[in-house]
Amino acid sequence: RNNKLDLALIYSRRDAIATGVFTTNRVKAAPVILTRRQIKGRFARAIIINSGNANACTGKEGMVDAKEMISLTARALSIDKKLVCVASTGVIGQPLPMDKIRPAISAAVNMLSVDGSPDAARAIMTTDTFPKEYALKDTIGGKPVTIGGIAKGSGMICPRMATMLAFITTDAVIDYNSLNKIFRETVNKTFNRITVDGDRSTNDMVLCLANGSADNTILSGKDMEKFALMMEQVCFTLAKMIVRDGEGATRLVKINVKGARTLADAEKVAYGVGNSNLVKTAFYACDPNWGRIMAAIGYSGAYVKEKRISISFNRVQLVKGGICPDRDIEKDAKEVMKSREYEITIDLGVGDRDTFILTSDLSTEYVRINAEYRS
Amino acid sequence: RNNKLDLALIYSRRDAIATGVFTTNRVKAAPVILTRRQIKGRFARAIIINSGNANACTGKEGMVDAKEMISLTARALSIDKKLVCVASTGVIGQPLPMDKIRPAISAAVNMLSVDGSPDAARAIMTTDTFPKEYALKDTIGGKPVTIGGIAKGSGMICPRMATMLAFITTDAVIDYNSLNKIFRETVNKTFNRITVDGDRSTNDMVLCLANGSADNTILSGKDMEKFALMMEQVCFTLAKMIVRDGEGATRLVKINVKGARTLADAEKVAYGVGNSNLVKTAFYACDPNWGRIMAAIGYSGAYVKEKRISISFNRVQLVKGGICPDRDIEKDAKEVMKSREYEITIDLGVGDRDTFILTSDLSTEYVRINAEYRS
Repeated sequence: RNNKLDLALIYSRRDAIATGVFTTNRVKAAPVILTRRQIKGRFARAIIINSGNANACTGKEGMVDAKEMISLTARALSIDKKLVCVASTGVIGQPLPMDKIRPAISAAVNMLSVDGSPDAARAIMTTDTFPKEYALKDTIGGKPVTIGGIAKGSGMICPRMATMLAFITTDAVIDYNSLNKIFRETVNKTFNRITVDGDRSTNDMVLCLANGSADNTILSGKDMEKFALMMEQVCFTLAKMIVRDGEGATRLVKINVKGARTLADAEKVAYGVGNSNLVKTAFYACDPNWGRIMAAIGYSGAYVKEKRISISFNRVQLVKGGICPDRDIEKDAKEVMKSREYEITIDLGVGDRDTFILTSDLSTEYVRINAEYRS
Repeated sequence: RNNKLDLALIYSRRDAIATGVFTTNRVKAAPVILTRRQIKGRFARAIIINSGNANACTGKEGMVDAKEMISLTARALSIDKKLVCVASTGVIGQPLPMDKIRPAISAAVNMLSVDGSPDAARAIMTTDTFPKEYALKDTIGGKPVTIGGIAKGSGMICPRMATMLAFITTDAVIDYNSLNKIFRETVNKTFNRITVDGDRSTNDMVLCLANGSADNTILSGKDMEKFALMMEQVCFTLAKMIVRDGEGATRLVKINVKGARTLADAEKVAYGVGNSNLVKTAFYACDPNWGRIMAAIGYSGAYVKEKRISISFNRVQLVKGGICPDRDIEKDAKEVMKSREYEITIDLGVGDRDTFILTSDLSTEYVRINAEYRS
């Protein structure tokens, strides 16, 4: 559409062990259902992805179309159908334009290139304003090992699940169980800690392929730890890019919650504050409206004691003992809020559990984008 | 501020039985804490209300100020302090301007008038664009009985609690237990069924005073039912006014949920859809984007089967069996969405429980209002 790239193909020359995390939305898109099944075989070589159409709420026809995308990709690459994953992102409830997708798959296979990642990152974009790519290379197990990924946002982004498309690839030699464990833990610490609008998509998936072509000695001990850290850094950087590019977003705010009685309580507060329209509108206005934060903490459902709550904006402590002891400090907090990125730390003072999430502000532009998205 | 009325006094010449419903936010404003205590005595004669300042997150000083509002009102009216309730609405976290409130309380007492309700409705407004007043009169128990009320919105409005200020008065003769029961049931069917932005306030309260000056025979049987219906109509009309005047709202949408397995599931779906920023932005754009509704149903947490879901806009059925069988119907749905008020009916097809909520759209104006509210 409008000459935008809208079909991407990720291909591994060797069989790669593969794992994934999928949306927990009960309404699941056809490609989510299919790829979840495919990945149970633990191996993959290709991922075919289209943007602009989510192939969700499309009934039997949607399943037929997604299966055809897999078959066509497998045939064009001369590989087993079982090794192909499929993903879609875009408008819900419309049939895939298969007459356009069929020839595009052949074209994508012919255009495969080791330099293709920037184009692929661009092809999976919907309302994203910039492509999201990141990679790290380091010596692990005696060899240079690379972990790279592409991702897209930027609406229907909510925590506690894979909330977007992201595809991570590595040439590391690693056993399936370790990769699966590291990847799930990483997703939980990165992609599952972001929110743009509290809406959870029908199409989210984060896949990871490791094809072992780095020929390192199989990972264990310190090497495994190093690999896990690299993985976390790649995923965290991509997750951050998604929030920074949240629809209409002008700010990226990390919300730290400390001193909660339980981890669940810490999460309730982080998400309660990070998803509050009133708090996010105050971020947009650079208004240190800590009263809205207090209100969101109060209705989050977590156990809190008003008089024990402290709130800081970066190093500026605005609230202590549930009140703002000196309103002049608001000026300093307002200065912090003028940065594109800053942190808010909420100390509940009733326990020792903590967490964080990344969120964005709510701007008039968010409404404009989503009022116009289909038209 | 800006010559706006901002202090209201409601007064009954006789002792009235009194009941109330208060915010469930764990962070509670001083007037909420105090009035909840006061009302335990089951009688009241006066309610003093200020707008512009919520007297929330104001610590000990806030409690002292709220108590002083009660004392000053009691003294000026020459009534017992125990018979005075206090309510505040506005910005959180700033000390009350007591130097302005003290003389204003005396002035309000001097201005008391049976024709004062329109001014009182205006004085409790914050970001409301119109005052909210409604009353009904009918013969019950052999006498004309009146139920009237005033209310205010229009941000931090979220269901499952009293989410605003509303004050209902009646001259009916009724026993405390019946009034309390009827009032709680009514609030649950009216004020607790509305949402504007999913944010729950620290200051919400709905109070009801019944002073018995209608001299009807004490209510029972059919008379009690008639009274309960009148009460529901008054509260429902006021609740509807609050949503219609939701910050930046251009649409009032009733979301009916049918065929849920449990009432809790029906509520999850109604609130999930009614609080989704993406759904509400589509309302604003008159875009029958049923895919966003399906996504919100899916992540609501309710038990659903995608293939059993139907969605109608007024009488236009857009989704059947989880899909849209004919995209041309979207044009008819779009026509429905151009009305200021319409209904969306979601049939989950997995049970027989139902509910509804009233919600508004999310407009660029909502963001503008809340980005500017304090500045």
